[in-house]
Amino acid sequence: MLSPTIQKLISLFSKFPTVGPRTASRFVFYLLKLSKEEIEELINSISKLKKDVKICSFCFNPFESSTSSNQEEKLCKICSNPIRDKTLLCIIEKETDLVTLEKTKKYTGRYFILGGTVSKLKKTDIEKLRTKELEERIKDHPEIKEIIIAINPTVEGEATALYLERLLKPFKLIKITRLGRGLPTGAELEYADEETLSSALENRK
Amino acid sequence: MLSPTIQKLISLFSKFPTVGPRTASRFVFYLLKLSKEEIEELINSISKLKKDVKICSFCFNPFESSTSSNQEEKLCKICSNPIRDKTLLCIIEKETDLVTLEKTKKYTGRYFILGGTVSKLKKTDIEKLRTKELEERIKDHPEIKEIIIAINPTVEGEATALYLERLLKPFKLIKITRLGRGLPTGAELEYADEETLSSALENRK
Amino acid sequence: MLSPTIQKLISLFSKFPTVGPRTASRFVFYLLKLSKEEIEELINSISKLKKDVKICSFCFNPFESSTSSNQEEKLCKICSNPIRDKTLLCIIEKETDLVTLEKTKKYTGRYFILGGTVSKLKKTDIEKLRTKELEERIKDHPEIKEIIIAINPTVEGEATALYLERLLKPFKLIKITRLGRGLPTGAELEYADEETLSSALENRK
Amino acid sequence: MLSPTIQKLISLFSKFPTVGPRTASRFVFYLLKLSKEEIEELINSISKLKKDVKICSFCFNPFESSTSSNQEEKLCKICSNPIRDKTLLCIIEKETDLVTLEKTKKYTGRYFILGGTVSKLKKTDIEKLRTKELEERIKDHPEIKEIIIAINPTVEGEATALYLERLLKPFKLIKITRLGRGLPTGAELEYADEETLSSALENRK
Repeated sequence: MLSPTIQKLISLFSKFPTVGPRTASRFVFYLLKLSKEEIEELINSISKLKKDVKICSFCFNPFESSTSSNQEEKLCKICSNPIRDKTLLCIIEKETDLVTLEKTKKYTGRYFILGGTVSKLKKTDIEKLRTKELEERIKDHPEIKEIIIAINPTVEGEATALYLERLLKPFKLIKITRLGRGLPTGAELEYADEETLSSALENRK
Repeated sequence: MLSPTIQKLISLFSKFPTVGPRTASRFVFYLLKLSKEEIEELINSISKLKKDVKICSFCFNPFESSTSSNQEEKLCKICSNPIRDKTLLCIIEKETDLVTLEKTKKYTGRYFILGGTVSKLKKTDIEKLRTKELEERIKDHPEIKEIIIAINPTVEGEATALYLERLLKPFKLIKITRLGRGLPTGAELEYADEETLSSALENRK
Repeated sequence: MLSPTIQKLISLFSKFPTVGPRTASRFVFYLLKLSKEEIEELINSISKLKKDVKICSFCFNPFESSTSSNQEEKLCKICSNPIRDKTLLCIIEKETDLVTLEKTKKYTGRYFILGGTVSKLKKTDIEKLRTKELEERIKDHPEIKEIIIAINPTVEGEATALYLERLLKPFKLIKITRLGRGLPTGAELEYADEETLSSALENRK
Repeated sequence: MLSPTIQKLISLFSKFPTVGPRTASRFVFYLLKLSKEEIEELINSISKLKKDVKICSFCFNPFESSTSSNQEEKLCKICSNPIRDKTLLCIIEKETDLVTLEKTKKYTGRYFILGGTVSKLKKTDIEKLRTKELEERIKDHPEIKEIIIAINPTVEGEATALYLERLLKPFKLIKITRLGRGLPTGAELEYADEETLSSALENRK
């Protein structure tokens, strides 16, 4: 019923995060309606992404060389910014969390993208995280005084945070902190879980 | 189609919180299936509620005399409990918030049920709150050293909390606190609003 | 924390359909705020329900005697209405379905409230349905020419409808029908299941 | 914070149906993790789509030439299938509706993709629909005996269907039908709207 080319593209789009076959086929029918120029624009942007975007050698954030100089940059704009506070390091799960935290304009330190979370502390799962690189950063950067574990307070995130706390214990001079727990904007006490409410009581100010 | 008695009861149940006419009619058909004894049990419980349950003269929490003595009690179990910390007073919107906070077992002080929130600081709205009684409690109880405004961080709640902070300003020796803001259990950074995330960063520990 | 009378009433309200403990406690706090007169009105309505509302001896619909005569009525307003079409009988699961169907003003026959559905055709489950009474009605009322099985097209409903079709097979002169299947108002083809769409194609007109 | 290439691609993905900026950025971070080969596969599939997929000259369904012959095909597999019933024409809103209807395996005729719906019968809106092409098909294909208007029974869909019925009125020998209305699989009478329930009663069988 659907041509092989359409079916192939549906299966590729179905691998995109949050996309199922139904949405994938809507994507394909959307593309079919685009002009030749619009399709070329999309294809060029995708191939430019792979060519021009590099991964920061410190925090693993994707970035693009802003200068046309030959000299190759290795650090993203945040890590190479002399004004950012080098004593702070914020460990996050993934790239979008960096975008979200930057939007608050409240954090002035550097980041480290861990690359995931683990549900159980299986060796094979942990090996997918950038824990070795994290330890290297800390060893190579004695200016770091505080590490903020900014991992989601979900079941998986808590397991990962506990693992990180254990991993970072040997670095005794570094303060390890976690994001504050409490009531979010718009919350109602009546529907808050006991753990959140206990934190909100403890962290009152 | 429906008999007047059924319709009357549907209209009475429709006034219950969260109940619409459809649910109200399900309630009535449920009652019709109950035995005579079950109906009597319900009726007795409702009339006993009005007869036996009093309102605490300190915190406005409903309570029931636990002794059969003639001596009339005026304070609920929490307010009359000698172990509770009399230096703490927690202002809450409504009775269910007291139940929710007690479940955490983290709060040892007394409560004060404000009786609502205000969306705008209209005089007529504020008069519905127990602000006069609140001021009386504070004047009559110099042992109070900290007042926790445990009002929902919703738009209405924030307006009410601001009003309370202004109202309590003259009591200079009392510390005024608010419930801690931050990420609740199960939250994901990606979907957290900026205000919550800013609080979570500030309250890190 | 909560008084026994309050807890008792919470547990009674928690048995109401769709009501959990949280909603049940909101009901109790709502009742506590009502005046003495309002509580009496509620209690009187509930006891009047049990006293005055009878169950129709034909269709099992609850009804109330409209006359003050001594002569006891046995049929509800629908069953005793001479204009209603006595050749049609509509089998429904529960009382609210009758209310819903009457609102359409498209059905002019009588009803029969089956009293539930069955998920599996277990003997003990089927015995809870009014199948014996249904057979009696059909035998006693040879004027019935069509029986409409107006049971929800859910998994449980389908099992019940199949059971009814088998039960009614011996009454060869009676036409057995089911509610029409197809797209409901506001449906989108894209999200319709195959069975519904197949029916919609077959029943096109 | 985000590089121009990433931002450009986020803005392009944000134009995809159902995709907002948050999902679009997840798409980009997903692409960044793909291998060079996987990116090439995606790019090739997109450009192949534009090159190889044609639009059927009868029904506007996208299709791909199955043969490698020089002879250019103009009709999709459904329209060129000699077994399909040429007396039936099913008017649908969009390509995905064709896929959905084909899955039922209950329809054996041809389709016509209208290309949208109209909310109000404004001339400029109607001109975006393929009404002129529809009239041409009917004139050029006297074998068509029934036209099924398979437009969603939504507010917009109903307006469009009414417009089509008016448009097709002059073709007196053709039967115009609509998809059957009624209860969908899993529906509950209690929550059905009156129009759907009225249809279900009328279309009982």
